[in-house]
Amino acid sequence: MKNFSIAIHGGAGTLIRGMMTPEKEQSYLSTLNEALNLGYKILEQKGTATDAVIAAVCVLEDSPLFNAGKGSVFTSAGTHEMDAAIMEGKQREAGAVAMISGIKNPILLANDVMKHSGHVLLAGEGALSFAKLRNYEFLPPSYFHDAFRYEQWLQIKDTDLTQLDHTKRDHKFGTVGAVACDMEGNIAAATSTGGMTNKKFGRIGDSPLIGSGTYANNQTCAVSCTGSGEFFIRGAVAYDVSCLIEHKNYTLQQACDEVIKNRLMALGGDGGLIAINAQAEIAMSFNTEGMYRGFKHSDGSARAVIYED
Amino acid sequence: MKNFSIAIHGGAGTLIRGMMTPEKEQSYLSTLNEALNLGYKILEQKGTATDAVIAAVCVLEDSPLFNAGKGSVFTSAGTHEMDAAIMEGKQREAGAVAMISGIKNPILLANDVMKHSGHVLLAGEGALSFAKLRNYEFLPPSYFHDAFRYEQWLQIKDTDLTQLDHTKRDHKFGTVGAVACDMEGNIAAATSTGGMTNKKFGRIGDSPLIGSGTYANNQTCAVSCTGSGEFFIRGAVAYDVSCLIEHKNYTLQQACDEVIKNRLMALGGDGGLIAINAQAEIAMSFNTEGMYRGFKHSDGSARAVIYED
Repeated sequence: MKNFSIAIHGGAGTLIRGMMTPEKEQSYLSTLNEALNLGYKILEQKGTATDAVIAAVCVLEDSPLFNAGKGSVFTSAGTHEMDAAIMEGKQREAGAVAMISGIKNPILLANDVMKHSGHVLLAGEGALSFAKLRNYEFLPPSYFHDAFRYEQWLQIKDTDLTQLDHTKRDHKFGTVGAVACDMEGNIAAATSTGGMTNKKFGRIGDSPLIGSGTYANNQTCAVSCTGSGEFFIRGAVAYDVSCLIEHKNYTLQQACDEVIKNRLMALGGDGGLIAINAQAEIAMSFNTEGMYRGFKHSDGSARAVIYED
Repeated sequence: MKNFSIAIHGGAGTLIRGMMTPEKEQSYLSTLNEALNLGYKILEQKGTATDAVIAAVCVLEDSPLFNAGKGSVFTSAGTHEMDAAIMEGKQREAGAVAMISGIKNPILLANDVMKHSGHVLLAGEGALSFAKLRNYEFLPPSYFHDAFRYEQWLQIKDTDLTQLDHTKRDHKFGTVGAVACDMEGNIAAATSTGGMTNKKFGRIGDSPLIGSGTYANNQTCAVSCTGSGEFFIRGAVAYDVSCLIEHKNYTLQQACDEVIKNRLMALGGDGGLIAINAQAEIAMSFNTEGMYRGFKHSDGSARAVIYED
């Protein structure tokens, strides 16, 4: 039987261990494992990589612990603006949404954009009109209200500060994502985020941008990124990993490390990524103190961790 | 003295020669030459590549002939939504705006995003708030109203059709752009578009996306694309050219041709691009019948053309 596997992340950043209690750590790890197990089960039952990454990301979007979906941070206007993207490696089809609100699972809408819109990226009110047409339920702001996130926003709302949600003042992180390889050898990547606390001006980060925060090609790899989005855009980070594999014959792990630890750092960016290939190999790399992450492989190996070790 | 040069495009597509009168052709070429001459003059007077591409793109944005700025097509709501991006090769700084309206020169706002926002991509109302803060004038819809574009939209507004403005039914094209190399050996790329006629759902194409429609790196090349945006996004076309030069030692022209004539076509996309490097070499490639384009080089060569020959 062909190998299959899934990997997920819940954001990278300079976690301060002192701010992490054993109870908190346990609830993060338990949610990561829930997402991994659900995605893995789909793969085990001959489901597609696309369905597996969607299922895993939905678990993370539904948790208040991660900055995506329900746990999204507040914008400067006190609202929530979410971005998400998905890409399939077989035909390199892709779909993404940016600056949307009221949608429980932005990754599902990104998938509908890929499958039913004829476009790749829809944003703002227009994306919500598309969601209406696809019969999405619109949730009230209270669904996304979280006391911790609100407090976080109140502290900086009258300033010009923005927070990527992975600064030292914070112990929660910016993005969630998943990559998977199914029994057919098809791979997929999905990324979802609630953006930056107190963000203004309709800023769009790397998460919904194909080639920047999300990419998939069966011939090379599927990638989902997390970090300082502007640098990931300028470095075309997700596609950069793919190019090193295609043109330079790097292994998956070599390509991830080269991009995150050399090329991204040369630009001044910080963060990390998870990647997978059509042989179900998994690689992860980050240049921050930690990254919420985990994987589960058909060879029996599985792990969910936060810090470097 | 170090060589310098500039190249521009006014969109690629399947031009039908029968629809082009000698008078029309002359007015297109005359505007292309005006843009080239203005950009070239800046370079000649020791101006930067950034200033040169901005000046050239502003000329094209100010002309009703091209689908950008004043000549932008109508969305399904009968409004105008414009996108633009700029990138500098030296530090790989970038700025972009998407889904903006009422701004005479979107490329100027993209440049301000790069220099003053701390972000790369701002969209919609948020981008307009930023413009307000930067004291931009907001023009009424009448400035962007063009009888031809309006007629074009009326014909399909009650249908589900969208037009990239480079289909066979049309003899005008989708995007404008410029790349330049200055005396210091710095390169830059700029792209601006009015999007698709009758577009819905807040669709964002490749033009404002770094790595897709616009890219610049002094070590490799600066690129501005035009064509079927969704395919340029999925192919990360602008960055793809850069990677072939960096990793495979392709010449500029080889890289452009490989990306447009092989890699983009394998995905199913059509369009073209212009590219430049820090040695002031210029390359252009397209897989359509024509591309409005031109260049001017300090070695004395210059040309503005539309069709293949």
